[in-house]
Amino acid sequence: MNIRQYTSIADRRNALEKMTGTSFSHIGSYSLDEKTASSRHCENMIGVTQVPMGVAGPLYITHVSGNTGHEYYIPLSTTEGALVASVNRGCKAITECGGAVTDSHAVGATRGPVFRVKNLQESRRLYEYVKTHKRALEEVASKTSHHLTLHNILTRGVGRYRYIRFVFDTQDAMGMNMVTIASEAIAAYIERETGIACLAVAGNFDIDKKPAWLNFIENRGTKAWAEVTIPKHILKNVLKTTARDIYDVWLAKCMIGSAMSGSMGFNAQYANIVAAMFLATGQDLGHIGEGSMGITTAEVVDNHDLYISVYLPDLMVGTVGGGTALATQEEALRLLGIAGGKDGSHAAVFAEIIGAAVLAGEISLLASLSQGTLAKAHEVLARGGKRP
Amino acid sequence: MNIRQYTSIADRRNALEKMTGTSFSHIGSYSLDEKTASSRHCENMIGVTQVPMGVAGPLYITHVSGNTGHEYYIPLSTTEGALVASVNRGCKAITECGGAVTDSHAVGATRGPVFRVKNLQESRRLYEYVKTHKRALEEVASKTSHHLTLHNILTRGVGRYRYIRFVFDTQDAMGMNMVTIASEAIAAYIERETGIACLAVAGNFDIDKKPAWLNFIENRGTKAWAEVTIPKHILKNVLKTTARDIYDVWLAKCMIGSAMSGSMGFNAQYANIVAAMFLATGQDLGHIGEGSMGITTAEVVDNHDLYISVYLPDLMVGTVGGGTALATQEEALRLLGIAGGKDGSHAAVFAEIIGAAVLAGEISLLASLSQGTLAKAHEVLARGGKRP
Amino acid sequence: MNIRQYTSIADRRNALEKMTGTSFSHIGSYSLDEKTASSRHCENMIGVTQVPMGVAGPLYITHVSGNTGHEYYIPLSTTEGALVASVNRGCKAITECGGAVTDSHAVGATRGPVFRVKNLQESRRLYEYVKTHKRALEEVASKTSHHLTLHNILTRGVGRYRYIRFVFDTQDAMGMNMVTIASEAIAAYIERETGIACLAVAGNFDIDKKPAWLNFIENRGTKAWAEVTIPKHILKNVLKTTARDIYDVWLAKCMIGSAMSGSMGFNAQYANIVAAMFLATGQDLGHIGEGSMGITTAEVVDNHDLYISVYLPDLMVGTVGGGTALATQEEALRLLGIAGGKDGSHAAVFAEIIGAAVLAGEISLLASLSQGTLAKAHEVLARGGKRP
Amino acid sequence: MNIRQYTSIADRRNALEKMTGTSFSHIGSYSLDEKTASSRHCENMIGVTQVPMGVAGPLYITHVSGNTGHEYYIPLSTTEGALVASVNRGCKAITECGGAVTDSHAVGATRGPVFRVKNLQESRRLYEYVKTHKRALEEVASKTSHHLTLHNILTRGVGRYRYIRFVFDTQDAMGMNMVTIASEAIAAYIERETGIACLAVAGNFDIDKKPAWLNFIENRGTKAWAEVTIPKHILKNVLKTTARDIYDVWLAKCMIGSAMSGSMGFNAQYANIVAAMFLATGQDLGHIGEGSMGITTAEVVDNHDLYISVYLPDLMVGTVGGGTALATQEEALRLLGIAGGKDGSHAAVFAEIIGAAVLAGEISLLASLSQGTLAKAHEVLARGGKRP
Repeated sequence: MNIRQYTSIADRRNALEKMTGTSFSHIGSYSLDEKTASSRHCENMIGVTQVPMGVAGPLYITHVSGNTGHEYYIPLSTTEGALVASVNRGCKAITECGGAVTDSHAVGATRGPVFRVKNLQESRRLYEYVKTHKRALEEVASKTSHHLTLHNILTRGVGRYRYIRFVFDTQDAMGMNMVTIASEAIAAYIERETGIACLAVAGNFDIDKKPAWLNFIENRGTKAWAEVTIPKHILKNVLKTTARDIYDVWLAKCMIGSAMSGSMGFNAQYANIVAAMFLATGQDLGHIGEGSMGITTAEVVDNHDLYISVYLPDLMVGTVGGGTALATQEEALRLLGIAGGKDGSHAAVFAEIIGAAVLAGEISLLASLSQGTLAKAHEVLARGGKRP
Repeated sequence: MNIRQYTSIADRRNALEKMTGTSFSHIGSYSLDEKTASSRHCENMIGVTQVPMGVAGPLYITHVSGNTGHEYYIPLSTTEGALVASVNRGCKAITECGGAVTDSHAVGATRGPVFRVKNLQESRRLYEYVKTHKRALEEVASKTSHHLTLHNILTRGVGRYRYIRFVFDTQDAMGMNMVTIASEAIAAYIERETGIACLAVAGNFDIDKKPAWLNFIENRGTKAWAEVTIPKHILKNVLKTTARDIYDVWLAKCMIGSAMSGSMGFNAQYANIVAAMFLATGQDLGHIGEGSMGITTAEVVDNHDLYISVYLPDLMVGTVGGGTALATQEEALRLLGIAGGKDGSHAAVFAEIIGAAVLAGEISLLASLSQGTLAKAHEVLARGGKRP
Repeated sequence: MNIRQYTSIADRRNALEKMTGTSFSHIGSYSLDEKTASSRHCENMIGVTQVPMGVAGPLYITHVSGNTGHEYYIPLSTTEGALVASVNRGCKAITECGGAVTDSHAVGATRGPVFRVKNLQESRRLYEYVKTHKRALEEVASKTSHHLTLHNILTRGVGRYRYIRFVFDTQDAMGMNMVTIASEAIAAYIERETGIACLAVAGNFDIDKKPAWLNFIENRGTKAWAEVTIPKHILKNVLKTTARDIYDVWLAKCMIGSAMSGSMGFNAQYANIVAAMFLATGQDLGHIGEGSMGITTAEVVDNHDLYISVYLPDLMVGTVGGGTALATQEEALRLLGIAGGKDGSHAAVFAEIIGAAVLAGEISLLASLSQGTLAKAHEVLARGGKRP
Repeated sequence: MNIRQYTSIADRRNALEKMTGTSFSHIGSYSLDEKTASSRHCENMIGVTQVPMGVAGPLYITHVSGNTGHEYYIPLSTTEGALVASVNRGCKAITECGGAVTDSHAVGATRGPVFRVKNLQESRRLYEYVKTHKRALEEVASKTSHHLTLHNILTRGVGRYRYIRFVFDTQDAMGMNMVTIASEAIAAYIERETGIACLAVAGNFDIDKKPAWLNFIENRGTKAWAEVTIPKHILKNVLKTTARDIYDVWLAKCMIGSAMSGSMGFNAQYANIVAAMFLATGQDLGHIGEGSMGITTAEVVDNHDLYISVYLPDLMVGTVGGGTALATQEEALRLLGIAGGKDGSHAAVFAEIIGAAVLAGEISLLASLSQGTLAKAHEVLARGGKRP
C-alpha cells in the first residue's frame, strides 16, 4: 500500500482501516481544523489522538517579578489515573498556605552548530572571530525574524571541531524553528567571512531533546523556581503527614537516591506534571526529558513546618507558535490566561505556573510516599474508584 | 470556585468557561468513553486534548528473534510539522533496502525502595537477607498479581540507607502500577522479617521518569536495537546525500557533540519519535525522557554504503493497561497489530517497531543535516507548504 | 640528545643536567633499589621524586566483618600543607568517640574488551555464547594466573560492537596487569570459539582511570564504607562546631552543590586523602579519580550528635604487586600492618582504613567550613606556622 | 602512643618504628629540606615517599600562541612499569613527524561559595547584587593578593541556596589557597553589603577535586589542546600499526565505549600521564581526577595518515607555589625550563606540555591496543624485561 497516494485524511484512514480490517472511528473523530492540522502540524494525517484533560486547582501563585498573585486552574492531559488527583491535592495544600511564590528567568532557545576547522590554529581563529563579531552575528540573526534576538554565545573547541551555542531571545515562542533558521543564516555568514565550513547546524551543543548537563548547567528556554512553606496543620489535614516525614523521604529519595542512580533529576516526579501540561498546551513533547531535570529542596522550619521548593533549569515552552495554535491546546492556554504572545511575559508566567504545578506534584507525591500510600492511590483510582 | 463540587465533565468545563469568559468547545468534543476516561485515567476531567495523528510507512522490519519480516505503518501523534515527513522519508529509505533488522530484550519494570538501617552492620544484614531470600520475595510478589514475576534484584547501601532495585517481568504491560503494589508487598514482608523499616517504596533507585545512568547501564523496561545498511543509490535518490556525509555529521554531532554536552543521548532525535509514538499508543509520557537515552552508530561500508544502528536501553512500553485502553490509543496499537497482551511478545515487537521508527528518524535527520536542509524543511512545512 | 643511548640512571641524569645547565642532585638522591625500580617500575629512570610523608592518628577502627578493633597510624604523602593536620583532627574526633566502624566488599578488578560483530544477530549470538560459557571462560582465566578468578561478566551491545566487562577476584593485588593478561586470553579464546574478533582488550567498558557512572553503579576494585557518631562535646571540643552546623554545610555542599555541578563526587575531599594514601603506599595514581567518587551522608541524631558516613564505590587498591614493592611504599604498608598478600584480607582491611581516613578528612573539612576557618588553616600552615 | 608529643621528624619516625617493630629506614632517607617540608607541606612528617622518575622524549612541540617550537624531556614519576616506555614511544612518533602543535587558554582557578537566602525573592536580590557589583568584588579580591584577579562570576540559585562560582586569574600558580582566601574576603564583603550569610566558602560549585560536568563544560584552571598528523610510514615503523587500526580502536573505545560507561573521560589514558607529571612536578594530586576528563579525537586523513588530538578542559596546574617549591619537584620543572612564575606564561606552557605528553600517551596506547600488544608490554616490563 502506498500511503502517499491519498490526499485526504479520510481516504488515508479508510485505506488503513481496510488494510488492517479494523475500524479507526475514534481516530477519525475530532473537531480541530483539519486543514491547518494536516498542513502545518502533521503530515500524512489520519485523525487525532484524544487524551483526557483534567484540571487541578485552584493554585494560587505570587510571581516575584510582578509581586502580583493569581489563582490558576491547571490543565493536565494524561492517561494515568491518580496524576490529576495528586497534583490537585498539592494545589490545595499550597493554596491553603496562601500560595506558591514563583520566579523565572528567560534564558533563551539554543542552537549549537559544529564547524569544521583545519587544525588548532584555525580553531583559535574561529574562536576569536566569534568573540569579536558578536554584533555582526546579532544583525544577521535579527534579519531572519522580528521575533528573535541573538543574546549569548558559548563556544568550545575539540580537535578539528568547534561547537558554537547560540542563545536567542524568542519572546513568547518556544522558537526552535526560528532559531534553526537564524542559526543557518549565522552559520552561512560565518562560512563566508571566515572560509570555515559548518558541518551541521545542529551539532548537539544545543543540546536539543536529550538529557544533558550542558542544559542543566547553562540552562535553556526558561528556567523557573517555585516555593512554599506549609504549616503543620495543613501538612496534617490536607497531606496526612508531617514536615519531618516528608523531609526524610525527600533526602533519601530526591538527593541520595538520585545520586546513587547517576541522575540529572533530583526530584520526585517533575516529568509527570511537565508531560501533562506540555500535552495540554501544545508544547513539543520531545522536550519533556529536558523539563524533567531539576532539583527539589526541602527543609523543616520551626520544627514542624515544611519549606519546599523546585528548580527547573530547562523549560522549553511557548504560548504562541507550534502546537499552541491547535484548538484544544489554545483553549487550555486560555484557561491559564496566557494564550498568544505578549513580549515574552506570557512564556515567563507559563514557566512559573508549570513550576508551581510541579511543586504541587512534589508535595503530594512526597507526602504519599512518606505515609506509604502510593500504591493504594494508584490501585484505587486505576480501578475507577474514588480516592479515599 | 471549587472545582470539586462538579460531578459531571460538562458541568466542570462549563464552570471554567464561565469563570474565564471563554469557550472550551474543542476540549469538549470527543468520542472516547468518558466514564472510563474520567474514572480510570484522569480525575477532574473536562474533556480532551486532540493531537493530530499521522502515519509513516510502510516500514519493513525483520525481527531477529523470529526471523520474520513485517510491514508496519507507524502512528505518530504530534503538533510539530515536518516530523512525520522526516520519519516517512527514513522509512522509505529503510524499506527500499529490504528493511530494518531489529532485536530486543525484556529487562523489566523496576521499583527501588529505600530502607532505613541503623548502621553499617544492619546494612550488611539487609544485604545478606535480600541475597539469600530471593525465592521468598518472588513468592510475595507473585501473590500480588498473576501478570508479574520478580526476576532480578540489585542493592546498594550508603550510610544508613539501603536501596533495593526490584526488576519485574510484567509481560505486555508497562506495569508501573503493579510493580508498585508488588514492591509495597515485598517491602512490608522485608519489614516484618527483618525489623528494618522501608522509608519509601520509590527511592529513586527505580529510577522512574528521570534521566539517569542507572537506567542507561542496567537498562529498564524493554531495550531495543535496530539496524540497516543503506546502499549508495538509495542514499542518493531517497536521502540526497552520501554515506560519508552522514557519517561525518553523526560523528561530530551524536558522538563528540554529545560528549561535549555531558549528555545521556548520543543520538539525533530519539525523543521526537518516542514522544509521537508514545502519545499515539497511550504510553506514559513521563517516560519520554528515559526513552530519549541511547546511542546511534554509523559506519561507511564498502566505501559508499552506510551502516546505521540505534540502541534504546530504556523503553518503558506496554500494549495493555494504562492509556492503551483508551479508544484512539487502542486503535493505533491495532494499526500495528499488537493491541492487548500476548505473553510479552507484543511489548517486545512494539519496542522493536519503536526502534526501527527511531532508526528512520535518525537516518532522515542526519541526512538533512548533512545537506544543510534542516531549517528549510521546517520552514516550508510549518507554513503549510509541501516538502520539496 | 638521544635519551636512549644511556644505560645507567646516573649517565642519563647527567646528560640531562648538562643539556639544561642545571643540577638534578635531589632527583639523584634516593635509597630505593635502583635496579628493581628502573627495570620493573619506571623506564628511562633518572632518579626519584621525594614527597614528604606525614602521619595522622591514632585512628581507631572496628571492622564489621571481623568485629575486631584496631588502632592505625595513617601514612599520608603530600605536598599540600594542612592536609595531614586536617585528617589528624578528624582521627582525633573519631578515636575519642570510640572509633569508626567500617565495612567493605571485594568487587574485583575489571577489563572490558570490545568485540566487533557483523550485525545484531551476531551480537545476540555472542551475548548468548558468553552467557552460557561462563565456566569455560573461568578456566581460561585461571590458567593465566593462580592469583586470579573470573567471577562476574557484564555485557552490553550497541550496533556492531559488543562490550564485555570481566570482573576478577585478584586477592590482595590491585591486579590490572594480571586481569589484562587474563582478558587477552579470554578474548583470544572467544575469538577462536565464535569466530568473532576482539577489537581491543580495553574498550573503556572496564572503565579504567576515567570518572564513570559504570564504576560508580557497578562498583570496581574494593568498595568501602565507614561511619561514626560524634557526640556533642567532641564536636565542640575537638572540632569547634555543632552537629547542626556540619549538617547544614554537608547538605548545601556535598548534596545540593554536587548536584548543581553535575558531579560524581557527593563529598568534601575524598580525593585528597585517597591521593595521599595511594602515593604513600604505592598504589597506581591513575586510579585517584575513580577513588574520588562516592557519597558522604550526615545526620543530626538526638538533636545534638552527628552521625556521618562515607561510601567509596571504587577503590582500586592492593597490598602486593605494582608500586607496593618499592622500599618506602612497602614500609608505609608495614606501618598499617598489611604489607604483602593474605588471601584478599589485606586489601579489604586496607580499603576500610582508607574509608576511615577519608571519613576523618570529611569530618575535619566540613567542621572547618561550618566555622569559616578553611582559608585560615591553609594560610597559617602554608606559611610554615602552627595551626591555632 | 601520642604522635603529637614528638617534635622532630626522626623522633616521630623512630617511635613508630618501635611501635610496629619494623624499620622505616627508606622513608627516613631523603635530601629535601626537612624544615620547609615539615612546616609548609606536611604536618607530622616522618620522612618521604620515593617514587622513581623517568624521562620520555625528546618531545617536539610548537605552541600556537607563540608560533615557536621547543624540544622537551618529560619527567614522569611512576611506579607502574611500561608507562614511561609507552609515552616515550608516542614522543618518538610525534617528534619524527615534526612535533605536536599545542594551544591553551587560561580559564582560572575557582571557588564556589554557597549563600543562604531566606526565599526566592532574596535569591533574586543576591543574583542582581552580584551582577551589578562585579567591580567592587574585584577590588576586594585584589586586596588579598597581588597575584590574583577576579575575572569571572557564575551564579545559580536553587531554593534557599545561591551558589556563586568565582573564577580567578592566578598567573603561574595553581592558586587554590589564594583563591580560598580571596573568596572568603569576597564572601565576607557580600555578607556585610547584603546581609545574606555565606554558609560555606567551598560549596562544591568550584567544584574542587571531584569529577564534574561543571568543570568539563565551564572549564577550570588551564585548558589545553594538542594535535599531530602522523604519516603512514611512521605509523608503521614506530607504532607498528596503521591509521585505520588506531581509528577503529579510538572510535570503539574512547567514543562509544566511554558513552556506554557514562564517563567524563572520552580518552585512553589521560590519567596515567597527568598523574605521573603532576607527581614529578609538585602538583596537587587531588586534581588528577579533574585532569583525566577530556576528549581524544582521531581521523584518517588521505586514506593512510592519522590526525589525532587531545583536549583537556580542566588542568589545575602551576609552576610556582605549593609542591613546586620542593627540591625534586623544582628540578623537574627546571628540566622543562618553566620553574617559577612568569606572568602566567609558564603555567600556559606547562599545560601545553602536559597536553602534548598526554597526546603521546594516547598514540602509544591506542597503537598497542590496535595490535593486541597491551598485556605483552606490561607483562614483559613488569617482570623487569626489555620491551621488544
